[in-house]
Amino acid sequence: MAVGPDTLPTLLPIPGFKIGISSAGIKRPGRRDIVVMELAEGSSVAGVFTLNAFCAAPVTLSKQHLSQGPVRYLLTNTGNANAGTGEQGMKDAIQCCHELASRVNVSAGQIMPFSTGVIGEPLPVQKITAALDAAIADLKEDNWLEAASGIMTTDTRAKGACEQIMIGDTLVTITGISKGAGMIKPNMATMLGYVATDAQIEPALLQQWLSSAADKSFNRISIDGDTSTNDCCVLVATGLSGAEISAASEEADLFVAALNRIMLQLAQLIVRDGEGATKFVEVRVSNASSVQEALDVAYTIAHSPLTKTALFASDPNWGRILACVGRAGVQNLDLNALTIHLDQVCIVEKGGRALSYTEEQGQAVMNKEEILIHVDLNRGDITESVWTTDLSKEYVAINADYRS
Amino acid sequence: MAVGPDTLPTLLPIPGFKIGISSAGIKRPGRRDIVVMELAEGSSVAGVFTLNAFCAAPVTLSKQHLSQGPVRYLLTNTGNANAGTGEQGMKDAIQCCHELASRVNVSAGQIMPFSTGVIGEPLPVQKITAALDAAIADLKEDNWLEAASGIMTTDTRAKGACEQIMIGDTLVTITGISKGAGMIKPNMATMLGYVATDAQIEPALLQQWLSSAADKSFNRISIDGDTSTNDCCVLVATGLSGAEISAASEEADLFVAALNRIMLQLAQLIVRDGEGATKFVEVRVSNASSVQEALDVAYTIAHSPLTKTALFASDPNWGRILACVGRAGVQNLDLNALTIHLDQVCIVEKGGRALSYTEEQGQAVMNKEEILIHVDLNRGDITESVWTTDLSKEYVAINADYRS
Repeated sequence: MAVGPDTLPTLLPIPGFKIGISSAGIKRPGRRDIVVMELAEGSSVAGVFTLNAFCAAPVTLSKQHLSQGPVRYLLTNTGNANAGTGEQGMKDAIQCCHELASRVNVSAGQIMPFSTGVIGEPLPVQKITAALDAAIADLKEDNWLEAASGIMTTDTRAKGACEQIMIGDTLVTITGISKGAGMIKPNMATMLGYVATDAQIEPALLQQWLSSAADKSFNRISIDGDTSTNDCCVLVATGLSGAEISAASEEADLFVAALNRIMLQLAQLIVRDGEGATKFVEVRVSNASSVQEALDVAYTIAHSPLTKTALFASDPNWGRILACVGRAGVQNLDLNALTIHLDQVCIVEKGGRALSYTEEQGQAVMNKEEILIHVDLNRGDITESVWTTDLSKEYVAINADYRS
Repeated sequence: MAVGPDTLPTLLPIPGFKIGISSAGIKRPGRRDIVVMELAEGSSVAGVFTLNAFCAAPVTLSKQHLSQGPVRYLLTNTGNANAGTGEQGMKDAIQCCHELASRVNVSAGQIMPFSTGVIGEPLPVQKITAALDAAIADLKEDNWLEAASGIMTTDTRAKGACEQIMIGDTLVTITGISKGAGMIKPNMATMLGYVATDAQIEPALLQQWLSSAADKSFNRISIDGDTSTNDCCVLVATGLSGAEISAASEEADLFVAALNRIMLQLAQLIVRDGEGATKFVEVRVSNASSVQEALDVAYTIAHSPLTKTALFASDPNWGRILACVGRAGVQNLDLNALTIHLDQVCIVEKGGRALSYTEEQGQAVMNKEEILIHVDLNRGDITESVWTTDLSKEYVAINADYRS
C-alpha cells in the first residue's frame, strides 16, 4: 500500500560518520532495533524536534545534550517511544546514554538519544544495554542502508536519499535516511530523520539550514494531522571532505539547494509510505497573501476526511475541496477570483464549477496515483505546498483492528 | 449505525407556526423534500449561519432577507444544496422566493430559503415551484414530525426536541427539529435546525439568545470537522401564547435554560446519527484558563483520526489522547499538573500513565457506546465540552464507496 516505485538510491558513505546496528529484541526477538551513529571529532550537529508539549524523554534529553555539545554519538531504538513515561522515562533515557558513554569513552552528555515505537511502556533499558556492544562492533561508514532498515517500525519501505555536489574542487556528499508514517496500535507515528555530510559547516549555520529545510519538507507533510511525541531530525557535518562552506556564498546556495532536495525526498517518502496510502497528493496554494494563509488553506484540504475519502475513491468531488477553501479562515476571500485545478484541469472558477469542466476530465486525474490539487487564491505572491495521502479503509483498519 | 435509543418525543405544535410538506422529486420521485413554514404576523425571527466563505446562495439570501424583515415564510428543499453554483445559484434562490411569495401574497424579501443536498448541481427551480401549492395546502400547526422527516437527507433518524415551561401563569412551548451528519457523495453534510416558540420576544433579544445557544450546542459538535456550506439554524417566536419575555428577568433565565437544552438535544442527535457512528463521545476540558484553550484541546482530540479510530476499536489508547493534548498549542502547559479520565477512570497523571490505571478499567469504559473523555488542565476555571463520534470503516465506506 505504498505509492510510487520502491527505489532506494545508493546511499553513499560520509567520511567521519559511522553507523552500527544490532538487535535488542525490544518488540520482537531478532529484529534489528538499535542504531548507533558515531560522529568524527569536530563534527557540527544541528537538530529539529517535535513541538508536541508531551514530547518524549529522549527528545528533551537530546535537545539538552545538543545545546551543551559537542555531540559524538546518536543512539536510536525502535519498538518503544519512551513517551508518556514520566520521571522514570527520563531516568531511563539518561541511563542509556551513560551505558553507551562508558563503552565509547565519552561523557553521557555527548550522546543524543532517540526512541520510536509504543507510547507509555517503560523503556527496556537492560535489553538496550545488552545490545550496545554489538552495535559498536558494527560501526562502519558504509552502513546507511542497514540503518534505514534498522530505524523502521511499521514502515513498509526503507527510506533514503543521497546527492553529491562540487564545492570548489571538492566532491561533497549528503546522505540521509528517514522513517515514519506507521502508527499501529498503540504506537504513534514517530518520524525520524538523519542526514549527514562531509562538508565543513559551523554549527549555527548548520542549524539555520536544517531548520529552514525541515520547514519546507518534514513540516510540510501530513498523513493524518497527528503530530507525534517523538519527531526528530538531525543534520551532521563531519567536515572530513575538507570543503568549508560559509554563509552567503555561492557554495552555500549550492549546498542548501541540495540539502533541501534531500530533505524533501525523505519527507515525501514518508508520505508515500503513509498508512493505507493509495494516493500521493500535493496540495499547492499559489498567489496567497502570506505563507500562513497558504498553509491554512493547504492543510484544511490535506486534513479534511471528506477530501481524503474522495481521493481514496478516485472521485473528482470538487465540492468538498471548495468547501475546505471556504472554511480555511481566509479573511475577505474573493470567491470569484480564485481557481482550483486538479493537475491541469480547472474544476472551480467564478465561485462555482468551471464552465469547461467535464466529469471525465476530473475522473482521469483522480484515477492517477499521484495528484496535484492546486488552489490559486489570486491575491498575493506566495506559493506553498504540502504533501499528503488519501484516507482509506486500510488506514482505519491499521489503526483500529490490530492491538499490538 | 446511530448511537442511543431512537426515541423522538412528542413535538407539540406552536400556535402561529404552520408547516407544510410536499414532494418535488428533486433526488428521488415521491420523496418528501419541500418544507414550507409559515410564521404568524408579528413573529420575531433570529438566525445563525455557516461561517464557510463558500456559503450557498440560499444562505446569503436568507441572511439578507432576515436583516430586512419581517420574515413570514421559511422555504426548505433537500436533495440540492444550491452551493458552488455561482451567479445562477443566486438567481435560482431568488426565483424560488418569488414563486412562493406570489402564492401567499407576501414579498419575496419576506421569505428565507434553505437548501441542503448535492453541491454544485443547478437547483431544479421548476420542480420546486411545481411542489409549492401542495406544501401550502398542507400548512398546519401539528406537522412537526412530518417536517423532521421532510428535511432529512442521509439522516437515519428524524430529530426533534420539545419542552414546556411556565412563564408567569402562561404555558409556553418550545419545539425544534434538526437534520444533518449525512454526507453521501457528492453531498456535504448540511446541518439545519428550526426552533419555534409561542413566547413573545423582541428580535434583538431572540437573536442574542439563539447565537448564545448555538454557540453551546451546534457549534460544539463535530463528526469530521468539515464545516458545510449550508449550515443554518432559525429561531422563531410567534408570541401567540401572550407570554412576553424581556431581558434580564427570571422568565428570561427560565426560557434561555430551556432553549439551551432543546438546542443541545438537537445538536447531540446529529452526532448520534453521525455517519458510521458507533460511539457518542463527550470531550470535556475542565479548569482551562480560557474558553479558546479549552476548545483547542477538546477539538484536537475530537478531530484526531488516531483517537477516533481507537474509539471505533474500543481501545483505551491513552497515548493517543495524551499526544493530542500535547499538540493542541496550549502555552506553558504543565504536563505534571493535568489529568485525563475516561469516564471516572484516571488514565493519565503526572505526565504519564496513572499509577492506579489498569487496562481492564480502560477497556470497560471503551466498550460502552457513550464515553466521556475528560481532560483536567488544572490551570484555570473554564470548562467546555464538545461532542463527537468515532471514525469507523463505515464512515470511509459511506464517503468513498457510493457515488450518487
